Amino acid sequence: MIVNMSDSATEQQIDHIIQRIREAGFQPHVTRGTERTIVAAVGSNGRRHEIEALSVAPGVDTVVAIAQPFKLVSRQARPDSSVVDVGGIKIGGPEVVVIAGPCSVESREQLFETARGIKRAGATMLRGGAYKPRTSPYEFQGLGMEALKILREARDLTGLPVVTEVMSTEDVDLICEYADMLQVGARNMQNFALLRRLATINKPILLKRGPSATVKEWLLAAEYLLSGGNHQVVLCERGIKTFETGTRNTMDLAAVALAKELSHLPVIADPSHGTGKPSLIGMVSRAAIAVGADGLIIEVHRCPERALSDGAQSLDIPQFARVMHSLGDPLRPVLAVGERPTQA
Amino acid sequence: MIVNMSDSATEQQIDHIIQRIREAGFQPHVTRGTERTIVAAVGSNGRRHEIEALSVAPGVDTVVAIAQPFKLVSRQARPDSSVVDVGGIKIGGPEVVVIAGPCSVESREQLFETARGIKRAGATMLRGGAYKPRTSPYEFQGLGMEALKILREARDLTGLPVVTEVMSTEDVDLICEYADMLQVGARNMQNFALLRRLATINKPILLKRGPSATVKEWLLAAEYLLSGGNHQVVLCERGIKTFETGTRNTMDLAAVALAKELSHLPVIADPSHGTGKPSLIGMVSRAAIAVGADGLIIEVHRCPERALSDGAQSLDIPQFARVMHSLGDPLRPVLAVGERPTQA
Amino acid sequence: MIVNMSDSATEQQIDHIIQRIREAGFQPHVTRGTERTIVAAVGSNGRRHEIEALSVAPGVDTVVAIAQPFKLVSRQARPDSSVVDVGGIKIGGPEVVVIAGPCSVESREQLFETARGIKRAGATMLRGGAYKPRTSPYEFQGLGMEALKILREARDLTGLPVVTEVMSTEDVDLICEYADMLQVGARNMQNFALLRRLATINKPILLKRGPSATVKEWLLAAEYLLSGGNHQVVLCERGIKTFETGTRNTMDLAAVALAKELSHLPVIADPSHGTGKPSLIGMVSRAAIAVGADGLIIEVHRCPERALSDGAQSLDIPQFARVMHSLGDPLRPVLAVGERPTQA
Amino acid sequence: MIVNMSDSATEQQIDHIIQRIREAGFQPHVTRGTERTIVAAVGSNGRRHEIEALSVAPGVDTVVAIAQPFKLVSRQARPDSSVVDVGGIKIGGPEVVVIAGPCSVESREQLFETARGIKRAGATMLRGGAYKPRTSPYEFQGLGMEALKILREARDLTGLPVVTEVMSTEDVDLICEYADMLQVGARNMQNFALLRRLATINKPILLKRGPSATVKEWLLAAEYLLSGGNHQVVLCERGIKTFETGTRNTMDLAAVALAKELSHLPVIADPSHGTGKPSLIGMVSRAAIAVGADGLIIEVHRCPERALSDGAQSLDIPQFARVMHSLGDPLRPVLAVGERPTQA
Repeated sequence: MIVNMSDSATEQQIDHIIQRIREAGFQPHVTRGTERTIVAAVGSNGRRHEIEALSVAPGVDTVVAIAQPFKLVSRQARPDSSVVDVGGIKIGGPEVVVIAGPCSVESREQLFETARGIKRAGATMLRGGAYKPRTSPYEFQGLGMEALKILREARDLTGLPVVTEVMSTEDVDLICEYADMLQVGARNMQNFALLRRLATINKPILLKRGPSATVKEWLLAAEYLLSGGNHQVVLCERGIKTFETGTRNTMDLAAVALAKELSHLPVIADPSHGTGKPSLIGMVSRAAIAVGADGLIIEVHRCPERALSDGAQSLDIPQFARVMHSLGDPLRPVLAVGERPTQA
Repeated sequence: MIVNMSDSATEQQIDHIIQRIREAGFQPHVTRGTERTIVAAVGSNGRRHEIEALSVAPGVDTVVAIAQPFKLVSRQARPDSSVVDVGGIKIGGPEVVVIAGPCSVESREQLFETARGIKRAGATMLRGGAYKPRTSPYEFQGLGMEALKILREARDLTGLPVVTEVMSTEDVDLICEYADMLQVGARNMQNFALLRRLATINKPILLKRGPSATVKEWLLAAEYLLSGGNHQVVLCERGIKTFETGTRNTMDLAAVALAKELSHLPVIADPSHGTGKPSLIGMVSRAAIAVGADGLIIEVHRCPERALSDGAQSLDIPQFARVMHSLGDPLRPVLAVGERPTQA
Repeated sequence: MIVNMSDSATEQQIDHIIQRIREAGFQPHVTRGTERTIVAAVGSNGRRHEIEALSVAPGVDTVVAIAQPFKLVSRQARPDSSVVDVGGIKIGGPEVVVIAGPCSVESREQLFETARGIKRAGATMLRGGAYKPRTSPYEFQGLGMEALKILREARDLTGLPVVTEVMSTEDVDLICEYADMLQVGARNMQNFALLRRLATINKPILLKRGPSATVKEWLLAAEYLLSGGNHQVVLCERGIKTFETGTRNTMDLAAVALAKELSHLPVIADPSHGTGKPSLIGMVSRAAIAVGADGLIIEVHRCPERALSDGAQSLDIPQFARVMHSLGDPLRPVLAVGERPTQA
Repeated sequence: MIVNMSDSATEQQIDHIIQRIREAGFQPHVTRGTERTIVAAVGSNGRRHEIEALSVAPGVDTVVAIAQPFKLVSRQARPDSSVVDVGGIKIGGPEVVVIAGPCSVESREQLFETARGIKRAGATMLRGGAYKPRTSPYEFQGLGMEALKILREARDLTGLPVVTEVMSTEDVDLICEYADMLQVGARNMQNFALLRRLATINKPILLKRGPSATVKEWLLAAEYLLSGGNHQVVLCERGIKTFETGTRNTMDLAAVALAKELSHLPVIADPSHGTGKPSLIGMVSRAAIAVGADGLIIEVHRCPERALSDGAQSLDIPQFARVMHSLGDPLRPVLAVGERPTQA
């Protein structure tokens, strides 16, 4: 880290910073310019927050962090890409994984019909909400336990592994009994109590990016899981909040490539929430694969206009089949030579 | 709600929409233009999501919501401004409330010194973190239970009611024993499991606005609390995420006025997180009061450069005293006649 | 347009709105609900702004626009996709066009070497700045007239048509003599004096999206060109400003698909400005093509670390050749059946 | 500036950077850490862009700028606050200046009635658009020359100095004949051709912040004016583009305080564009003054619902009078001791 002294900093103030850097477990290294002095805090075992707080010390202009703050999730820690196994489906391997299903589980018939439909179209995992995070308390909140049981039946019926969202530490054990993968929703990406709990279980986690989270914050949320012991983590880009209102969110596809450059974790994309518009889902799905995504998660309902949640962004089964068809075969395009040197 | 048909919609498609609006519990009302037809869904007892999902029905261009989705928090539901009592301190009344204290409780000495200092300077409530939401798992996570006990002692010592953050449903009961008010942090604003739990307790809640939450989403989060039975809710604007990097967040002061126009709940402002810069906190505090905020929450540490968290945005005690002095007396300026007609 | 009356609107206020809608050239159509009344302004020849201003009339809650405000650029006006011919290169046709070259023309040797290199790698148009919009007045502002001459020579040498930015109405005539296509930079997207002038010339225009422009505002900027007489317009997505700092801008690839759905104009993508990171340009280029972009514009410099501008985001010639190789052949993937129903 | 080498940088790569820093006119200063090496470029006369471009040199991880890039606008260059005189009205002095008037000049009667009304209410300058930047080409574009003449008459009638927007270099001379101050609109903040032209005239400039401009970019736009010779510059915050749709823009009031901390130039605020909601203008005006703004610019129309532009955000004359009354007397509150140490 770099402590940038102000033009008017005194020798005494510089000495104070040097001493504080030593106290924080770093080596100080001073560079005196014609106008200003900078003091670098060198080393990898110091306490970063103590240097950050020096920004308010007398004579200090700014403090700049140089190194990335994450460790276990980084490519430097593990140059080879991770592969996460979910009930036999490998996310992060040579094949693009497509997860599909309704926003919410609404009934046995609804889920079974959808599960069969998406399987026929080529999806290899099933999604479905049991506990739903809804902006308004007056919206459908999910069938809970009943939905979990239906999901399990759908898995047994179709063989498709199941992912469903967990909203609370209290539901973790129960959901683990029924689902193959637990999803942390975008609005819970920095629910640290939940992350700490999920770090202790032996189930893969699908970690959605928060709508206002930088890639760095997203990777630090994943770091909570890995540093707590759970290395089975898949990241999911689902759009960020911007001024653009023509789409529900702004799909940040470059972030997929950036996350894969910085981290070894698999990254999938959610064009349903990312765009909120059925007419764009096919094109954005293809773009996500082209940019390097390891998979897709797409909302499909047997009759979107009658869905209890997210109907406006869901595909019906024939539309989903057409999107799958448009993705071509093989799903994974040849990677550019030399483009991502840090990747295996 | 308005269903806007596309130019090429057929009579059959329009009839389908009319029927679906009836099924959803609304009265359909058709307006035929020269180029396009719109169908209004009239009534207050229908199921909104069923109309929203019609955006994917054949022949429909867009669906537009007209009425606001929140009920209990709205000024229409309660024209008089709410006053929330926290240990005898009234938030939302004629006096501006100033809450101050360290980001984290670090030790008995640290908190006592700070609590005495802020009380001397005029603060009327104490803040201090026991459970800390930190972006990185390697940062200080708070003293937990020990901090709660220290907070309680500080309250007994100074008489200042205490607010502290709750991060998990599992901690709710414990924190209720020690604190006068529970804070929901910005990153948990849409942690609906937590909101539902807090709706059932008899303690005031300080609900921070999420960094990417619209005012509407913020009020809907509050609606979870009120509709679940807890009407003791204070809103807190703490800055939103934007492209501007000169400040930590962008303080949305117009949102304070807007929230008070739309809702009867008290609204306070957090210039510490809103700006991240000690040099701006005084000016922004004054602006917050001028725009109608019912209070302020400010981070104060006896020695910011040694703080275990948020040191870079904390004031020391003399700086805080100067800010308090600059706010003047009386704190609440005369309101403009006619400016906020919906308010009592 | 819809005028949504407030709950407390009187009959007199509703009558006033009805009369004002007639004065504005629309037919009023009243829908009375149980709680509130809405008045639709029906017709296609009225004056929209007069209805928009009614939002401040007594008894009015909000005014909502239903129809899109653009005309000539819309797919409804012209269902077939436009093809723009630039010196024999067709943008918007079956082939993806790749425009490459340095941010700024720095010297004859620099441009010639780059032009030959990008042509060898497969680019079909040359870019190069003569007049540079720079954030700081102390940065390199371009060689001006001299650069235009060098660009012309490079075109004669390689046969590659040339695009260069125009920053001022005063330079339009001069640049028209030398360039095959004129670029309107992102920061000038709403420089309406410039747009009005460019509407009168017989040269193709490359219209970059402004960093804070919605797709709707971007299309309205293009509408200035078409309504003024110049139909040779190519749109260019180059990233928008968001809170994410890991990339220079946030590449909004869904906006490429959305713009093509709403408009018949060709759309290309600029991954150099969109990401600001050479390591991401290849992946994002492929994603842009997959999402339906009609072309790419990429910054290439013979020695990026010595470039006078934008060196940090430029590829060198071998890197560019690798990106081109990775895009594959044929460049244009098969479109999904049924995905973009409005397109020819 | 700091060049941060990657972990795997070789000695040869470090030597290359050292040499390039010397070539760019800086002194290199190397700090070797346990894991990585950083090289500082020391000095104030080097060429910054050459260091920035080193981010793509082999072995380099990132390049970080330490010093601010602006010079003449900075408080370091001129610790005392500037005062700009506009026809005898001093902006930046002890009194808050209120500029008011219609978005567009529509007729002699409209402007005269408004001018008299705002003067009676206490405004000291008149605004009115002659050339209007409109998002759509189908909206009212202003009366041009005729409006300029009416503005001049209004000034003669009322004695209020006049500010009006200039959109093109071609109009500069004409507008200078009629107006006391020229406004650069938000969408032209980085129209560098216009800025360079305005740098050469002897008239005060009102420079609005662009909707996606950081405070740093805004100050660099002002630097174009000062470095070109025109020091009579007033900055105007008018809201930035964010995800919030409850207000037209997000008023960034902390940016007013930040701009005044970083620069000696006066800063005013535009709550009309900043909020887009008449009901919020009074509260936000008061907040702007409290945060340190040197003035306000407010849209006022004799009959907002009949305005040809921006009617939805304009106050009528009695509403404006109430806002003025609510601002109190004296307008300028006492500044906090010690809050803005860099200011005179």
